Amino acid sequence: MPEPLTPHHDGSPLHVSSQAPGLGETVQVRLRVPESFGPLSWVGTRSNPNREPRFDEASLVATVDGWQWWQAAVEVENPVHGYRWLLIGDDGRQHWLNQLGLSSVETRDHDDFKLVAHEPAPEWAPASVMYQIFPDRFARSTAAIGAGAATRPAPDWAMPAEWNDPVDPVPPGRSAQYYGGDLDGVREHLDHLESLGIDLLYLTPVFPARSNHRYDASTFDLVDPLLGGDDALVRLVEAAHARGIRVIGDLTSNHSGDAHEWFRAAQAEPSAPERDFYFFKSEAEGGGYESWLGVPSLPKFDWSSAELRRRFIAGPDSVVARFLAPPFDLDGWRIDVANMTGRLGSADLNAEVRQTIRRTMLETKPDSILLGESTNDAAGDFQGDAWHGAMTYTPFTRPLWSWLQEPGSPAGGGIGFALARVPTFTGGDFHAAHTTFAAGFPWSTRLATMNALDTHDTPRFATHARPGTLPAALGLAVTLPGIPVVWAGDEFGLTGEDGEASRTPMPWGSEASPEVAPVLETYRALLRLRREHPVLATGGIRWLAVGDEAVAFVRESAAESVLVFASRSAARLEFDAAALPAVDAAGSLFGAARLAASAGRITLESDAAGFAAWSLPGASAPAWQGDSAVTRHE
Amino acid sequence: MPEPLTPHHDGSPLHVSSQAPGLGETVQVRLRVPESFGPLSWVGTRSNPNREPRFDEASLVATVDGWQWWQAAVEVENPVHGYRWLLIGDDGRQHWLNQLGLSSVETRDHDDFKLVAHEPAPEWAPASVMYQIFPDRFARSTAAIGAGAATRPAPDWAMPAEWNDPVDPVPPGRSAQYYGGDLDGVREHLDHLESLGIDLLYLTPVFPARSNHRYDASTFDLVDPLLGGDDALVRLVEAAHARGIRVIGDLTSNHSGDAHEWFRAAQAEPSAPERDFYFFKSEAEGGGYESWLGVPSLPKFDWSSAELRRRFIAGPDSVVARFLAPPFDLDGWRIDVANMTGRLGSADLNAEVRQTIRRTMLETKPDSILLGESTNDAAGDFQGDAWHGAMTYTPFTRPLWSWLQEPGSPAGGGIGFALARVPTFTGGDFHAAHTTFAAGFPWSTRLATMNALDTHDTPRFATHARPGTLPAALGLAVTLPGIPVVWAGDEFGLTGEDGEASRTPMPWGSEASPEVAPVLETYRALLRLRREHPVLATGGIRWLAVGDEAVAFVRESAAESVLVFASRSAARLEFDAAALPAVDAAGSLFGAARLAASAGRITLESDAAGFAAWSLPGASAPAWQGDSAVTRHE
Repeated sequence: MPEPLTPHHDGSPLHVSSQAPGLGETVQVRLRVPESFGPLSWVGTRSNPNREPRFDEASLVATVDGWQWWQAAVEVENPVHGYRWLLIGDDGRQHWLNQLGLSSVETRDHDDFKLVAHEPAPEWAPASVMYQIFPDRFARSTAAIGAGAATRPAPDWAMPAEWNDPVDPVPPGRSAQYYGGDLDGVREHLDHLESLGIDLLYLTPVFPARSNHRYDASTFDLVDPLLGGDDALVRLVEAAHARGIRVIGDLTSNHSGDAHEWFRAAQAEPSAPERDFYFFKSEAEGGGYESWLGVPSLPKFDWSSAELRRRFIAGPDSVVARFLAPPFDLDGWRIDVANMTGRLGSADLNAEVRQTIRRTMLETKPDSILLGESTNDAAGDFQGDAWHGAMTYTPFTRPLWSWLQEPGSPAGGGIGFALARVPTFTGGDFHAAHTTFAAGFPWSTRLATMNALDTHDTPRFATHARPGTLPAALGLAVTLPGIPVVWAGDEFGLTGEDGEASRTPMPWGSEASPEVAPVLETYRALLRLRREHPVLATGGIRWLAVGDEAVAFVRESAAESVLVFASRSAARLEFDAAALPAVDAAGSLFGAARLAASAGRITLESDAAGFAAWSLPGASAPAWQGDSAVTRHE
Repeated sequence: MPEPLTPHHDGSPLHVSSQAPGLGETVQVRLRVPESFGPLSWVGTRSNPNREPRFDEASLVATVDGWQWWQAAVEVENPVHGYRWLLIGDDGRQHWLNQLGLSSVETRDHDDFKLVAHEPAPEWAPASVMYQIFPDRFARSTAAIGAGAATRPAPDWAMPAEWNDPVDPVPPGRSAQYYGGDLDGVREHLDHLESLGIDLLYLTPVFPARSNHRYDASTFDLVDPLLGGDDALVRLVEAAHARGIRVIGDLTSNHSGDAHEWFRAAQAEPSAPERDFYFFKSEAEGGGYESWLGVPSLPKFDWSSAELRRRFIAGPDSVVARFLAPPFDLDGWRIDVANMTGRLGSADLNAEVRQTIRRTMLETKPDSILLGESTNDAAGDFQGDAWHGAMTYTPFTRPLWSWLQEPGSPAGGGIGFALARVPTFTGGDFHAAHTTFAAGFPWSTRLATMNALDTHDTPRFATHARPGTLPAALGLAVTLPGIPVVWAGDEFGLTGEDGEASRTPMPWGSEASPEVAPVLETYRALLRLRREHPVLATGGIRWLAVGDEAVAFVRESAAESVLVFASRSAARLEFDAAALPAVDAAGSLFGAARLAASAGRITLESDAAGFAAWSLPGASAPAWQGDSAVTRHE
């Protein structure tokens, strides 16, 4: 951790003049160097255009509050233009600064800071607060089904359940248990989302299928009538939009269900055009077909088929386009199993598939978001050429669990801990893991990546959390770069031992109970904090101190700064007061931890696990000059 | 450094059952764990097929000499199949092991160990000892030119020089100074190469050009008559082959010269087929054409042209194929500026170009080697799909200089130090930088990557080396994984301040002088060491101790081990004797450093800068069993 203070750079507007530069544009980048770092003989950037190094010298723009601001001009020569800083001391020592931090030896390309000239994510993306709904378990509608009937008649594959029945996490109940939530049920609860401060709703799949999760689509042509059909989705999106809530859907680009009309056509007739959509094996290969992790109900797509691309992802008649256009008007897609899509053996068509999806979206609804599921190291695929952000668990979710779960906790399927065991981290480990995996992303990708405590695929965070750590966990989700995510039910304090058990029907009516009310209030307060302070969406991040029990950082823009302190127990952190020149102006935004400054040191102290935030003035950065003003590429 | 002892794995035959597995093959991999590491509850691998994690549990095969040998079976599901080890202690602690070493937090994909199912490098590649010749400066032939004439008549671009004239490192002399070395001159000095122990000769370009370096080819159809023409190359290769020396050429896939027949045709006639071989700019774009780093004499190729591919790199009539076939019979290519090839702005055809070159080589002469110049972080392009190894300076050359050059040394152009300043490293920094950049390569790529002290493009190592460190430098070049490279003239103790000044004509006749003889003897002895101990080509590597002034490691196979100690001054290293159970059987191979073992500790000690190596018995590994025997994929 920065003790003594170290130079700082990140991708935020304080440090980079254009957040969405065009190819060939010259961008101004800035480095902050504490005066205590010592005299420097050279400061500048090392870019790598066309993989050949180029050095651009920086000049000292100003010294403010003990920090030198150095500025260099970097031409964006490739769509993903990496750069790192080099500082050479008067003593000849070389200091490289990249997304991992400082290094005295040369650093590697993939940890460079990056300027991305691909079409950017919508401007609303980083500012979003996301809520994730699994439609079967969220709410049954009253109006749509009518008085007297709890649900629509159950289909042949389903095992009907009462709303208060426990979730059955093992087959056959696992995928067949049917609670009958629907899209009008979601619409009827938009008040709840609005009261939480949600403005982005992510629906897991709504296509007809033969399971409660619907990741085994039987068609992509229509919305499941069990959910209310096309009209219910149109009604939901219209009602959500009226409240300023965007809605995104969920597409399985890796596979369909084995009951999918394409797969059935392919199975019935080897000469059918759909035959090439899948990987059927010859007799010699043992017959059958490739499927997701060998699960026969999820046959894997073969993206070498141009016809599959045309029907599914490419052009205005594709599934990708059709649901973004009126009357559906979805605001984007979350793509399931994005990591495996198009990959099998020696074939890797992943880049073509994701770029085709993105191109279709740009043609149909440019202001839409594209998120890819890739729950491990996502850096390779998330350089800005298609996915705006990742649904991944490596930079945030797993490190958070390792720091804040009870030591020795199990973690059932879905969240990706090796052998379902949660290793125990210090705050330093949390910081190291977060930084390691975030370093692979361009800044723009970090801002659109999902910060989830848990999801429909994982155990619920609350199940084995250390006492009192929910505010720290959620507080970090809303203050670290990325889109905070609430998995429906977490705000009611639900628990669940794995990704199946966590798909609990929402306990509507319990909002005022003594167990639920304080949890709900924590959610409302922290999501409000996020909404009310735009710096938490797009501001820079500087880590201030990291200890075993607590971490602290500041998000910064020219307009405002927010100081953040999260602890898992009684804890104390201390750091050089020069790190935060405006500390005397701090005003508490949340939490009971104490902030004090004296004798050149700042201390943060808590008596228990918790989360705290303070508002501070914006960073005292010199103004951008002339050509180097913040510009946005259109 | 491993103190206490840590688990070990690398890609060598001691630890991986197949060095060239086929796609779909199951490979046995082994991990060595020191008994002192503590009790383990789970050991195994985490693979990432199609980017989705898969865990394979290992079983304990045997415990030998204080080391547990664990074995897991890994199916190679993708052409580059990454894996890492996971060890879980009885205390629940998780330890990840990848190419960077141990980590208590999750690790990233690009640092995984890798099994590569692409067509492997020739078996002879890792065992090679390379010698690099810049033809104009190596030797004038006597027989070919005839009595009385020192050289052939100089061409119009040339500034003729006498053999003993100093090299002029600034324009116009830089590229025009013409010494008149030729290919028969090389042939007449094969005795010298043989006496050094060379078995792989790398010739910088031999095509006609308008410079002494010939990286600005004017045609690829023939060998420069100034070098003796096609026949001289045929004579040289035949003579070299007769001595067991292979010969590779040098191709510029990024650019040609502006006098190239293709470029002239393109300039003369906008409708010429060659027009599409280059990037001509419109009037609106300012006219002109793209060139290497803006140097007009080196127009850059546009690889979107199918006709360019056909003529240059694809198929039996291409330049790539023609010189590998009889009568030329070259044994491979070094590709110039491989890193920039096919890359410009938003275009990146690099993978297609390199894979096409490789395919053509496989069709023409499968047993040939393909090396790519990429003098910085080369990991991205060097995953085994085309380039067998890299001519890069990041894992070896620059770290070596930083450790062994006089503090504050300048380093002129070509070697890639930022601002031509050599940072000063400790042995720990050397190890860290080496490991960091080597970790991005599959093991097979490491073995075929060039370990050069310097090249025709860099200053010479000896120019500002710390006194007495040549044996350490060359000793590391021949004992670290990779192909050791001798840049012609280094064995005579030549110096040169930059990549131009180092192109000194060879000082033939000075071999017996008191300055040159000991240098030559050092080269002969250390290259012989490499040739006589195959473990130095393909054995595993375990680092034993690293200090500021010295480093030590062991190369290991089942047949033999070689212990290595390199120091830049008087130095002492000490480590746990359990690291090297067979130390009592050590026999000195080179150097004056002292090896001692007592009280459970091993010490290595030198009175000055130097290099030492000892032979030890092969590693006491349990035999591979049944199906897991070492197999080679054909």
